[in-house]
Amino acid sequence: MSKTTIFGKILDSEIPCHRVFEDEYVLAFLDVNPLSPGHTLVIPKERVAHLHELSDAQGAAIGRVLPRIARAILAATGAAEYNLLQNNGPGAHQAVFHVHFHIIPKLGDRGLGVGWDSSSLEASEAESLLTKIRAGL
Amino acid sequence: MSKTTIFGKILDSEIPCHRVFEDEYVLAFLDVNPLSPGHTLVIPKERVAHLHELSDAQGAAIGRVLPRIARAILAATGAAEYNLLQNNGPGAHQAVFHVHFHIIPKLGDRGLGVGWDSSSLEASEAESLLTKIRAGL
Repeated sequence: MSKTTIFGKILDSEIPCHRVFEDEYVLAFLDVNPLSPGHTLVIPKERVAHLHELSDAQGAAIGRVLPRIARAILAATGAAEYNLLQNNGPGAHQAVFHVHFHIIPKLGDRGLGVGWDSSSLEASEAESLLTKIRAGL
Repeated sequence: MSKTTIFGKILDSEIPCHRVFEDEYVLAFLDVNPLSPGHTLVIPKERVAHLHELSDAQGAAIGRVLPRIARAILAATGAAEYNLLQNNGPGAHQAVFHVHFHIIPKLGDRGLGVGWDSSSLEASEAESLLTKIRAGL
């Protein structure tokens, strides 16, 4: 088991949270430092730091409830647009090392800032990548 | 059914893709305009524009395979860090109106740019939001 994080303490009821939703596998609560009103965190009860460490069952349990939680946030905030973001590693903006999905309403200027500096995928690079990725599946 | 998008055409095999993974519910392929090497899109076969329109079953099917696909991308690229991003609405940076999850490795300067202008959640605002969100669940 990974070192206890602030989210582990929330799961243990050692720290309170503004609970939005809970079932056997998942807890959702308001982010106390929101990017916009309704900014919500959805976490697995499985205590791992990164998405790639989640079990299939836990991944499915989170995926199952994300649409439902998103619908409720949109209805509550009046937002029509939003981002789902899940960060892995400090260089990728992760600050708490327990998997968490951000649901971030976009309301005017408030919400997630997205920086998008893309390039073009070359055919030879694609083939090389595909061979390697498929080998890991 | 929503209007056919470029991803719908990929599902119909009218447009080719660099296929990473496929099962009954999900298709994953390389983004042709990657933010970093290994940038992959994971899409549902259900043809809806937004996360909140997905069925529970389709949401679960995507959630189940995301950890596995992420592991394979990390192994293939040597990346240790990455972001999962799913955008809803043009104001939230969505460009193709078929649900898609980006898995974006963070490799040095390459990857997702994240802008984070957060505030503090006031207790009274939290209570008001919780009442409204829970009413929709």
